[in-house]
Amino acid sequence: MIKISLPDGSVKEFAAVVTPMDVAISISEGFARNVISASFDGTIVETTTPLTTDGSLILYTWNDEGGKKAFWHSTSHVMAQVLEEMYPGIQLTLGPAIANGFYYDVDFGDQKITDADFKKIENRILEISREKHEFRLRPVSKAEALEVYKDNVYKTELISNLEDGTITFCDHSSFTDLCRGGHIPNTGIIKAVKIMSIAGAYWRGDEKNKQLTRVYGTSFPKQKDLTEYLELLEEAKRRDHRKLGKELELFAFSAKVGQGLPLWLPKGAALRDRLEQFLKKAQKKAGYEQVVTPHIGQKELYVTSGHYAKYGADSFQPINTPAEGEEFLLKPMNCPHHCEIYNVRPWSYKDLPKRYAEFGTVYRYEQSGELHGLTRVRGFTQDDAHIFCTPDQLDQEFKNVIDLVLYVFGSLGFENFTAQISLRDQENREKYIGSDENWEKAENAIINAAADKGLKTVVAYGEAAFYGPKLDFMVKDALGRQWQLGTIQVDYNLPERFELTYKGSDDQLHTPVMIHRAPFGSMERFIAILIEHTAGKFPLWLMPEQAIILCLSEKYEIYAKKVLNLLENHEIRALIDNRNESIGRKIRDAEMQKTPFMLIVGEEEEKNGTISVRRQGQEGNGNMSVTIEEFAAIVNEEIGKTLKVFTV
Amino acid sequence: MIKISLPDGSVKEFAAVVTPMDVAISISEGFARNVISASFDGTIVETTTPLTTDGSLILYTWNDEGGKKAFWHSTSHVMAQVLEEMYPGIQLTLGPAIANGFYYDVDFGDQKITDADFKKIENRILEISREKHEFRLRPVSKAEALEVYKDNVYKTELISNLEDGTITFCDHSSFTDLCRGGHIPNTGIIKAVKIMSIAGAYWRGDEKNKQLTRVYGTSFPKQKDLTEYLELLEEAKRRDHRKLGKELELFAFSAKVGQGLPLWLPKGAALRDRLEQFLKKAQKKAGYEQVVTPHIGQKELYVTSGHYAKYGADSFQPINTPAEGEEFLLKPMNCPHHCEIYNVRPWSYKDLPKRYAEFGTVYRYEQSGELHGLTRVRGFTQDDAHIFCTPDQLDQEFKNVIDLVLYVFGSLGFENFTAQISLRDQENREKYIGSDENWEKAENAIINAAADKGLKTVVAYGEAAFYGPKLDFMVKDALGRQWQLGTIQVDYNLPERFELTYKGSDDQLHTPVMIHRAPFGSMERFIAILIEHTAGKFPLWLMPEQAIILCLSEKYEIYAKKVLNLLENHEIRALIDNRNESIGRKIRDAEMQKTPFMLIVGEEEEKNGTISVRRQGQEGNGNMSVTIEEFAAIVNEEIGKTLKVFTV
Repeated sequence: MIKISLPDGSVKEFAAVVTPMDVAISISEGFARNVISASFDGTIVETTTPLTTDGSLILYTWNDEGGKKAFWHSTSHVMAQVLEEMYPGIQLTLGPAIANGFYYDVDFGDQKITDADFKKIENRILEISREKHEFRLRPVSKAEALEVYKDNVYKTELISNLEDGTITFCDHSSFTDLCRGGHIPNTGIIKAVKIMSIAGAYWRGDEKNKQLTRVYGTSFPKQKDLTEYLELLEEAKRRDHRKLGKELELFAFSAKVGQGLPLWLPKGAALRDRLEQFLKKAQKKAGYEQVVTPHIGQKELYVTSGHYAKYGADSFQPINTPAEGEEFLLKPMNCPHHCEIYNVRPWSYKDLPKRYAEFGTVYRYEQSGELHGLTRVRGFTQDDAHIFCTPDQLDQEFKNVIDLVLYVFGSLGFENFTAQISLRDQENREKYIGSDENWEKAENAIINAAADKGLKTVVAYGEAAFYGPKLDFMVKDALGRQWQLGTIQVDYNLPERFELTYKGSDDQLHTPVMIHRAPFGSMERFIAILIEHTAGKFPLWLMPEQAIILCLSEKYEIYAKKVLNLLENHEIRALIDNRNESIGRKIRDAEMQKTPFMLIVGEEEEKNGTISVRRQGQEGNGNMSVTIEEFAAIVNEEIGKTLKVFTV
Repeated sequence: MIKISLPDGSVKEFAAVVTPMDVAISISEGFARNVISASFDGTIVETTTPLTTDGSLILYTWNDEGGKKAFWHSTSHVMAQVLEEMYPGIQLTLGPAIANGFYYDVDFGDQKITDADFKKIENRILEISREKHEFRLRPVSKAEALEVYKDNVYKTELISNLEDGTITFCDHSSFTDLCRGGHIPNTGIIKAVKIMSIAGAYWRGDEKNKQLTRVYGTSFPKQKDLTEYLELLEEAKRRDHRKLGKELELFAFSAKVGQGLPLWLPKGAALRDRLEQFLKKAQKKAGYEQVVTPHIGQKELYVTSGHYAKYGADSFQPINTPAEGEEFLLKPMNCPHHCEIYNVRPWSYKDLPKRYAEFGTVYRYEQSGELHGLTRVRGFTQDDAHIFCTPDQLDQEFKNVIDLVLYVFGSLGFENFTAQISLRDQENREKYIGSDENWEKAENAIINAAADKGLKTVVAYGEAAFYGPKLDFMVKDALGRQWQLGTIQVDYNLPERFELTYKGSDDQLHTPVMIHRAPFGSMERFIAILIEHTAGKFPLWLMPEQAIILCLSEKYEIYAKKVLNLLENHEIRALIDNRNESIGRKIRDAEMQKTPFMLIVGEEEEKNGTISVRRQGQEGNGNMSVTIEEFAAIVNEEIGKTLKVFTV
């Protein structure tokens, strides 16, 4: 008999040989029908792999990441089979699952695959799939494997690096591939497939090697899933913050300034400033104090913090001074500077907590290939703050920070999120800095605070940093994509390294605890996500322009200016479009800019002292004729729905 | 006959040998009595030096910088005489005039000079001075000079480096010194003298040489001048922004972060932010658009701008990336970045002017010996803006900028200033970039704008930058010291280097003109000057805390909080002092923080719903009992006196 542990904590006993599918059936026939892959003691196995020892089994369905991986990897086998059929003599190399699909790298020799072939490949994959071929993994000797692939230099190279006795082939239909495993039971459940694109890829990612053709694809168990996925891709393309950032004139990059270093254009800078002022205001109420620190620090500062030893070689390199032999570094984070501010004077426990906040711009080197719009940059501004408190204050401080983060998310329309709590690896407690007692305190503070605030949580043991536990907010955007936004981290390490102290009620010196926190994370990344989440239709309080006054003709410019003045008195941000263009053209341009309200002014409006209001995204040349005061009330009501006053 | 040109443009003829004093007498006997030094064709001469050729003569009185230099240098001769008397066998080296006085570097051998000796030295200097000894310069041969100083290694070294025939000695009383000249007629006008301090100084400033003793002194033609000067020094010491910055907890430095890199503490950061918001608000009204750019740029950017060729070697050195061979520089100015922002899209003349503003932090290497508090730092934030306009718009733009600068100065209590206008050297027009026509336009724009705005101006020909003329505001602070604050510069160079263009009404591409301007200059330096100008008593609208609520005892804390709340509703920044300290102590601490209003609350006040107001710097425990509303009115009235609304 062997004992199989399941993720819910239950343990089942079975006769010495049992397959994952047997276990699934023992749970329920209905469940077993959905099981398409499994892992045993952390290793991916087939649903048919015989299990002969005690161990932990996880059964995957399509809804699990593990299930999708097996589904896509299996589809890549079928695609490889089709490619061999259609382009005889090609050499197959590797075909893994990736996020949202799979690829196969192929040496097509003198042959050529084009977009025009995609449909034919898809149809043939589905034809084979419908035949419900089982995937069967079998061991082969190294000699046999080398013999089979003697005409394929890539597979030969792969096999040469494997140990005899560990090599397996996977068969399905008439096709065989060198493969470690991780397949769905049979091809029958592949109901929808799409060849996405082809691209060049060097063998083993090394540009000194031959360039292969990478064929990207994806597949689904239902046609509907594929349709939805393709629509999502289209929508994501429309919402791409790089595209919208340009159209809305928010930011730009310059080759001369350098890649990964955004230039914030007036509208983007204003939007960013509005976000900063919004958070500053809430933070002020929450007892934070703003500080300002330089963007460089002596190398010594980062030697003290420990960052230099860890990241120095892979970072922007030190800045030397001409004659004095000093070395400075671009600051990769603000915490060392804030520790030095804490250290300017002595503190008593009565003074704590100290909460230092700074919109601090930091610089981190990223390889140019990794850069992406505003989400991966080389310079970004953190909405950073560091709270220095006593261990007893940790609980309340953590709750306060969660309140602030929830306020930020609520004001910006992010409603779908979970809190990931990262705790110690319970079995390797020695690898963490700080006393066991303090860790207990901090972990409990986080768990309690999250429960107290009613957060949906996921606990990840072993995911804490060596210096303390943390809580990350994982936010789903309007397209269902998940982003890590907002982090709260407890730190026992830096206060010790910087020898921070406070005098306790016992008149002795103690080391404070430090909390790092950033609700936005990075202004750049946050704004990128916000652009894609809202498709550029930011919450009304945040829009660069809340309204645009469209003159029916140049005759009404004076009245338009009067309207603008009145709007400014109501603190409504507006522009005038008095170009010599048709009203249709003006509306189209305002729609393009996503301006929430178009205020049309002509003879009628001037006479009555009104404006005709057209809401962005709606039809008609002004659906509502109102006075400026009425319009201001509409705007303020709508703003009040998302932007609440922060209270502590 | 020789022709002597005088600074007023007049030319006088004299017999072939004439002394500066003869010329002075020829102008007026009264004037001549005040003449104490002179320069001839740019070289300092004695008032007794025979002039034998045509040339330009400037006659100096005590009121001229040249007069003071001669006065102080001459006093250093008398001090040297006294030191030799009092410490026989010492070796004299060099004794120049400096700003506000003079020093003499002396090798005292085994002897020692202490503060206790200063009075005796001063008295003896005055005794000798009263004897009205004339200063007489006479040529000596190199051989003779070496013979005289054969026991003085320092003078011997100096003489060895001089050419025979150019060496002079200066005699007065029984004392002789090696000297190039530049003396007052006689010692009689030295009426007040003060030995200020002693310090170590290496011979010739080289630390490999022997350390000498530098004796600092100053002297005046009237005792009253000395008294005033010493009082000014005391006041300057009390107002030293480094001292007040620490006491008021505005900023600090950290050895670990690096010298010359200020850390802005909460109160300082808030003050700075208030200044920034103040200017941003005015700038918004004036049509500026805020942008945000990174703190680094590729070396290429500064090669394009020309800054790299000019300053590269003496600046913070380039930052390398680990693998990609890129080189970045800390940005020493914001203009190249703003040019790149201008270049993001094409512009028409109808779009101009574009006014990009940024509180841009820049980094410039300064030798550590040059650093001084916030006035000489390595990182500072400019209230920078760049206006891109057509040549025809220059006139109006310049006037608008002057309006803004005057608004800033007025709101901050700087009332005493002149505008220095720097124009081309009319005789070397070829060394300037840009067409003659554009220069005419720009120079006239500046001159007209300054006249139009009624500025007190000084025109400096030849002081323009090679790329354009400029206007600098020279501001006198409360101690009468002059600071350069606020600059407006026209630039024809960068727009060409960055190939900036706009489409003119003629449908052709033209190069815009650029204006650099910064009313504050640097936030750091401006705040330093503001601290010293106001002695930390900033204008009420700018004070970190405008009021502090002093509880007569802890019993009144609840009422104090109520008062605080009401004050916050009136947007008055206040704190509560509820420490268990005497009211006297609380008042003393609030005085130290220069908090403008102390609001005392006790039984009486709680009962009546009032506060007892004590004005900073005045006596009494609350001279005025008022309601919160009445107090708010007082505060707002006072603020309204300095902080006006900016109008365009």
